Amino acid sequence: MKVLLLNGPNLNMLGAREPEIYGRDTLIDIIGRVEKRGVELGIEVAAFQSNHEGALIDFLQKEAPEASGLILNFGSLTHTSIGLRDAVVATGLPAYEVHISNIFAREGFRHRSMISAVCRGIVSGFGWRGYLYALDALAAGLQEGK
Amino acid sequence: MKVLLLNGPNLNMLGAREPEIYGRDTLIDIIGRVEKRGVELGIEVAAFQSNHEGALIDFLQKEAPEASGLILNFGSLTHTSIGLRDAVVATGLPAYEVHISNIFAREGFRHRSMISAVCRGIVSGFGWRGYLYALDALAAGLQEGK
Amino acid sequence: MKVLLLNGPNLNMLGAREPEIYGRDTLIDIIGRVEKRGVELGIEVAAFQSNHEGALIDFLQKEAPEASGLILNFGSLTHTSIGLRDAVVATGLPAYEVHISNIFAREGFRHRSMISAVCRGIVSGFGWRGYLYALDALAAGLQEGK
Amino acid sequence: MKVLLLNGPNLNMLGAREPEIYGRDTLIDIIGRVEKRGVELGIEVAAFQSNHEGALIDFLQKEAPEASGLILNFGSLTHTSIGLRDAVVATGLPAYEVHISNIFAREGFRHRSMISAVCRGIVSGFGWRGYLYALDALAAGLQEGK
Amino acid sequence: MKVLLLNGPNLNMLGAREPEIYGRDTLIDIIGRVEKRGVELGIEVAAFQSNHEGALIDFLQKEAPEASGLILNFGSLTHTSIGLRDAVVATGLPAYEVHISNIFAREGFRHRSMISAVCRGIVSGFGWRGYLYALDALAAGLQEGK
Amino acid sequence: MKVLLLNGPNLNMLGAREPEIYGRDTLIDIIGRVEKRGVELGIEVAAFQSNHEGALIDFLQKEAPEASGLILNFGSLTHTSIGLRDAVVATGLPAYEVHISNIFAREGFRHRSMISAVCRGIVSGFGWRGYLYALDALAAGLQEGK
Amino acid sequence: MKVLLLNGPNLNMLGAREPEIYGRDTLIDIIGRVEKRGVELGIEVAAFQSNHEGALIDFLQKEAPEASGLILNFGSLTHTSIGLRDAVVATGLPAYEVHISNIFAREGFRHRSMISAVCRGIVSGFGWRGYLYALDALAAGLQEGK
Amino acid sequence: MKVLLLNGPNLNMLGAREPEIYGRDTLIDIIGRVEKRGVELGIEVAAFQSNHEGALIDFLQKEAPEASGLILNFGSLTHTSIGLRDAVVATGLPAYEVHISNIFAREGFRHRSMISAVCRGIVSGFGWRGYLYALDALAAGLQEGK
Amino acid sequence: MKVLLLNGPNLNMLGAREPEIYGRDTLIDIIGRVEKRGVELGIEVAAFQSNHEGALIDFLQKEAPEASGLILNFGSLTHTSIGLRDAVVATGLPAYEVHISNIFAREGFRHRSMISAVCRGIVSGFGWRGYLYALDALAAGLQEGK
Amino acid sequence: MKVLLLNGPNLNMLGAREPEIYGRDTLIDIIGRVEKRGVELGIEVAAFQSNHEGALIDFLQKEAPEASGLILNFGSLTHTSIGLRDAVVATGLPAYEVHISNIFAREGFRHRSMISAVCRGIVSGFGWRGYLYALDALAAGLQEGK
Amino acid sequence: MKVLLLNGPNLNMLGAREPEIYGRDTLIDIIGRVEKRGVELGIEVAAFQSNHEGALIDFLQKEAPEASGLILNFGSLTHTSIGLRDAVVATGLPAYEVHISNIFAREGFRHRSMISAVCRGIVSGFGWRGYLYALDALAAGLQEGK
Amino acid sequence: MKVLLLNGPNLNMLGAREPEIYGRDTLIDIIGRVEKRGVELGIEVAAFQSNHEGALIDFLQKEAPEASGLILNFGSLTHTSIGLRDAVVATGLPAYEVHISNIFAREGFRHRSMISAVCRGIVSGFGWRGYLYALDALAAGLQEGK
Repeated sequence: MKVLLLNGPNLNMLGAREPEIYGRDTLIDIIGRVEKRGVELGIEVAAFQSNHEGALIDFLQKEAPEASGLILNFGSLTHTSIGLRDAVVATGLPAYEVHISNIFAREGFRHRSMISAVCRGIVSGFGWRGYLYALDALAAGLQEGK
Repeated sequence: MKVLLLNGPNLNMLGAREPEIYGRDTLIDIIGRVEKRGVELGIEVAAFQSNHEGALIDFLQKEAPEASGLILNFGSLTHTSIGLRDAVVATGLPAYEVHISNIFAREGFRHRSMISAVCRGIVSGFGWRGYLYALDALAAGLQEGK
Repeated sequence: MKVLLLNGPNLNMLGAREPEIYGRDTLIDIIGRVEKRGVELGIEVAAFQSNHEGALIDFLQKEAPEASGLILNFGSLTHTSIGLRDAVVATGLPAYEVHISNIFAREGFRHRSMISAVCRGIVSGFGWRGYLYALDALAAGLQEGK
Repeated sequence: MKVLLLNGPNLNMLGAREPEIYGRDTLIDIIGRVEKRGVELGIEVAAFQSNHEGALIDFLQKEAPEASGLILNFGSLTHTSIGLRDAVVATGLPAYEVHISNIFAREGFRHRSMISAVCRGIVSGFGWRGYLYALDALAAGLQEGK
Repeated sequence: MKVLLLNGPNLNMLGAREPEIYGRDTLIDIIGRVEKRGVELGIEVAAFQSNHEGALIDFLQKEAPEASGLILNFGSLTHTSIGLRDAVVATGLPAYEVHISNIFAREGFRHRSMISAVCRGIVSGFGWRGYLYALDALAAGLQEGK
Repeated sequence: MKVLLLNGPNLNMLGAREPEIYGRDTLIDIIGRVEKRGVELGIEVAAFQSNHEGALIDFLQKEAPEASGLILNFGSLTHTSIGLRDAVVATGLPAYEVHISNIFAREGFRHRSMISAVCRGIVSGFGWRGYLYALDALAAGLQEGK
Repeated sequence: MKVLLLNGPNLNMLGAREPEIYGRDTLIDIIGRVEKRGVELGIEVAAFQSNHEGALIDFLQKEAPEASGLILNFGSLTHTSIGLRDAVVATGLPAYEVHISNIFAREGFRHRSMISAVCRGIVSGFGWRGYLYALDALAAGLQEGK
Repeated sequence: MKVLLLNGPNLNMLGAREPEIYGRDTLIDIIGRVEKRGVELGIEVAAFQSNHEGALIDFLQKEAPEASGLILNFGSLTHTSIGLRDAVVATGLPAYEVHISNIFAREGFRHRSMISAVCRGIVSGFGWRGYLYALDALAAGLQEGK
Repeated sequence: MKVLLLNGPNLNMLGAREPEIYGRDTLIDIIGRVEKRGVELGIEVAAFQSNHEGALIDFLQKEAPEASGLILNFGSLTHTSIGLRDAVVATGLPAYEVHISNIFAREGFRHRSMISAVCRGIVSGFGWRGYLYALDALAAGLQEGK
Repeated sequence: MKVLLLNGPNLNMLGAREPEIYGRDTLIDIIGRVEKRGVELGIEVAAFQSNHEGALIDFLQKEAPEASGLILNFGSLTHTSIGLRDAVVATGLPAYEVHISNIFAREGFRHRSMISAVCRGIVSGFGWRGYLYALDALAAGLQEGK
Repeated sequence: MKVLLLNGPNLNMLGAREPEIYGRDTLIDIIGRVEKRGVELGIEVAAFQSNHEGALIDFLQKEAPEASGLILNFGSLTHTSIGLRDAVVATGLPAYEVHISNIFAREGFRHRSMISAVCRGIVSGFGWRGYLYALDALAAGLQEGK
Repeated sequence: MKVLLLNGPNLNMLGAREPEIYGRDTLIDIIGRVEKRGVELGIEVAAFQSNHEGALIDFLQKEAPEASGLILNFGSLTHTSIGLRDAVVATGLPAYEVHISNIFAREGFRHRSMISAVCRGIVSGFGWRGYLYALDALAAGLQEGK
């Protein structure tokens, strides 16, 4: 069973920049922890990061047929991308939206998400643990046949 | 170490009504699971539910001095109560906001939260597991001295 | 067969204050007339008034399982309370919204109702007779199996 | 004593179309019931329906001098017609606004009425009975010298 | 040389209703005065009143080819009718907008005019004299070859 | 098989006025071309134009029971008429909305259509050919049993 | 009997700049014509122009006790000055608002007037003749004892 | 002569929390000072604090018949409670609104007050002295027979 | 120690106009009372009134270096002047905003203040006493070293 | 003669996903039909699809100098991309906008198009035939020398 | 050749107040540098500062006939003054808008400029050098005959 | 010392298209001038243009560690890209925003910049010279140790 883990623009800089906000963990560290949890749950995690909206859509279109769930942190594209929303809907897969920081405690233009309404849930402000919670929720949902 | 778990209006009806939306678990079932996880983490969970905004504020004012963190699902008051926001800020405690359903996939008036900006994080649409994630995050934060 | 008749904040002052606007009938007078009509229709009327949003929700939760319909005048809470809306939906009962004065001829903030969309109908500006019409409509609906 | 009963665009189609929404009663059936109630109350009911805003204004201007009250269901013109509002005000007669369905549970553009603020009351979502309630309220008001 | 003088809904009631607002002059009185001034200026005045938007458009389409200017008081249709705006533009004639009362001192929905932007000028709140001023302005413009 | 072709206010002036915008074809020329295409497709085209909203509704109510589809260019009424929208829905027929010019390249108040959401499609800015495309689409839909 | 004629910012430039919009008449020419009409009507015209909001308020405060009416073209201050509005109200005098060009056919920020609601009438787009019409209206009102 | 002094949600925490914002005085300290001033002015001060909107309304309804004026700091309920507004109006008493901090220098949702428009005055940002000023103003008004 | 007392447009008319709203005291009367209180408190009061925004800014710039606090009633400029706001900030002095009438019970455009957010407090609707309260608050603040 | 046919994000998934909405035709099927019609009209069709906004701009910049017209279905980018709008304008070519589904019957954020105002026309909700109509319109326009 | 350099309210305080924001240079220092650059470019710089909107308009009206370009920093009046906008347009001169600080990184009410749309360009946040750049741009434009 | 010069979508077309708006200089011409000025100032200029938001972010992430400042003309992405804003902030470098044309004199959707608030300054409408001014400002800032 495979889950796709997508990260959007600037998330490849995690750990290197503004650690007081985003923590000192790099994206690779975090993906490692998600993969480790995946191993425990019997779930393969296929991770992909890009600064390109189009590349994220390409990945979703190509990989979704082999996958059973989505973990999505589209970063800044969260707030504006109708294309990613459409691509998520087109997969027909259960999806969870993750944000490392609490987007609701930041600027007003980060309070609106184009993605939330087409996901099962959203977790924001739980740091890197948010990814793990999304994986757990996907695993639980798959177990429960949802 | 003690964590306060507050639930707002109508959440006492969980399990009994609209189970296709909110699931068949009662609030008592869910609190039981949170308490069990609390035992594993060495955290006492003090749960309180009320349909009265004022009673929730009273509880926060009275119990916060003995507590180390807050888990908050204020239900419908989430979207309008400045008083609960003020009371949360006044405690000075780390807080996490939980919603069982995905409020961002519902009516527009449920998309705005008065509470999110004064919490560390928000989890919405992960069902009863959201409470456990909030407890974990509090435990991790306390361990990390934050 | 039982119908719940709820009145919200300040409606207990009917008759005593501003009679040029609200008339000289007290809430007790009005409830008496509704009860009398209820007797004619074979319907028991269980009336409740409170200035507390939470108490109105408590009453709805407790009494709804024994009831067949709702007559609702939530007064000022009409315009802001998501909690009452949720509680009404949770009962699964047919409901009618009543306002003694014409709220659409008053200040702009009284033109929006959080309740109307989850009721079968709304009557506003018909004075105390609005309650009778709501009772009739409930009786007719029950007779017609709706 | 005479009351004018006006119905606006598309209300002549009642019963023939979308009966699951508007019921199976035709406008003629409903007018018959209002007239019958009028006979009981000693009130003549002069009914008029038109799909033309101008024709409704013409009727109001011509018939109002002989009338004592208005029952108004301007249908779709409710939401936009300043001309009907002006014509109602010009009659100087007590008026009640009626809608068969609950306009507040429909599309947003049906939530605003140009007419409500110049009527004594509004009843919406009570089906054909709303017309009877408006007639009763007019009769009661006339009796009470208002 | 001919000028069209159009009056919209409810203006046929001038003098008969609400004289404290609109004065005691009837529309016929006012048209008489405009015609008299027309005689002085060598201008024929063709007056038309209707409560029907469509009839006003019909009149404009039919009469404009023989006319040299327009005086327009569309009453309540001023604020909403794109069709009248389009019909005025289609005539290619100079036009002046007249309102007897000061529409800017009334309800907010009367502050917007769909017509003003396609007229040379607007006069509002000068009572019946506004029509004379519009006629003068048309005459002056025609003399000056504009 | 019959299709109704409705044109709203000012469209009877096509060809005579502002030809640089709307072209030199009259409405009669255009209807002739649609009828000719109708003959090819085995579809009778019943055309109607009016400057009166009410007359357009009357026509729809009367003719729809014999018709299989609608081609609608309500002109200026497109942007404001809830009554036409309701009348279109009441027919239960497939409908296409046509505008000769590109309404989205004109004033802001022409960008909103009350009609689009209840049609199968909209074509705007294709000149008189838009009517043919609507007829083709209706024919294709009928053939495909939609 | 005296009337105050106030002109606001940039109106002293009339005739010298943008004559294709404002005409070739200077403000002195126009005031001359108003004064001449004043002589015919037995009214003294006291004219004042300033680019300073404060100077216009000073003039109103000082001269109003000796005056019987106001003619106001506050130019660009029309759209923002609450102080001029207050000063006009404080005089207790009948006032007419004049604009040489049609402000409703210009930029959106010129469509709102802070002054209109406290005047008896507004004339816009009638060129310099608008001042005469305002004088006539004041004279007529004074004669009629209003 | 008696004045009611009401304080809303969280104001019972004054002095204990966030003293850098609200100062070190407790609500009891402040009430003591108001009572002392009341003694000087010959006014009895009846103070009440609650976190419950309903309890504040109950108190107003019960105590107002014996009182001559109101001093109101409804805290967070200031910005949303129509019920408190209605209750204040129903008392028919002169009222002054007090806020310890300057609500206009805080978040946008604290800039709107539902209460101000039904009070004689508002004082905000003067610390605990604001209560004294309100008491003085009530005393002065009562002396002056207002 | 010196405090600057600034009054904006139209406040020099106090007492002479609309006494039913603003009272019969002139600005000179009021300033006299503030100066008298200043003598008691050992504070020199330097008062200035102007109808010119620029003159108020000039005064602030020139006098602020010798002053210890500001009492500001900018009248109508309160609602629009960014320049006065900037000038107040530039003084670096503690400031209190005063309005004689309750601006929140008047027209909507008077509800927004550009000044409040840069003052320590605002008092509105307390009549001339508001100036005294502002002086007291400044004195108290200076004593407390704030 | 060459026409560019551009399709934006997710349109490469046509036929494979949500066929009940978009039909069972793949994008390749549809392009085949457009090319076939191109052959009949003597027009070469150069088709391009991408999920990348940048790639669509690149293609427009590179291919436009050899082309005579544009057919544009930018999918989700329609609603947000100023860059595509600018690129279309820069080509100086006649353009038609196509949407397979009726975007005006979907979510509100799909009702606004950044592209419509710089196209000659828009067709939405005509399924794959919309592309053919756009091609026809381009061919007709080229023939008519527009 | 002469260029007018206008500075609005509070800019005369540069250097004396809030140097951490605006720097330690006084307006006289900055004007000196602009004049020096003017000498190099053969351009006379006529500088004027006022806190009075009216005085700035007076200066523009009087000096523009002798000038070839404008450099404008209207300070706080930038955001509200329609009169200055009109005066700039009336000069017919090329103009550049300058702000020392970055107005787009400050409060929201400073983001809108009434002046930008009638200038050739705007420079904001480049400190005192912005004035030099504006002078350079004017010189380049004059050389290039624009 | 190195400065990054980024240009966004469609700026590679400078000189080739719409020269009446953007001038006849190509982007290569302009970059050449910036590089020449860079040589004079001892600053290396690394230029990059792309129509892809993702490519611009990639470039910023990769090159920023070796750079000391940013010159940014993101073209159409200026108005919508949160990702570029985040990437600019993440570099921690001083940045200046440049637009060749005056974006504030164009369509409303070009008036908002997502970038301005995270730059030191913005220059718009100064043509290609804006790039030089940005380079000068960076050089001056670096010299002054800011």
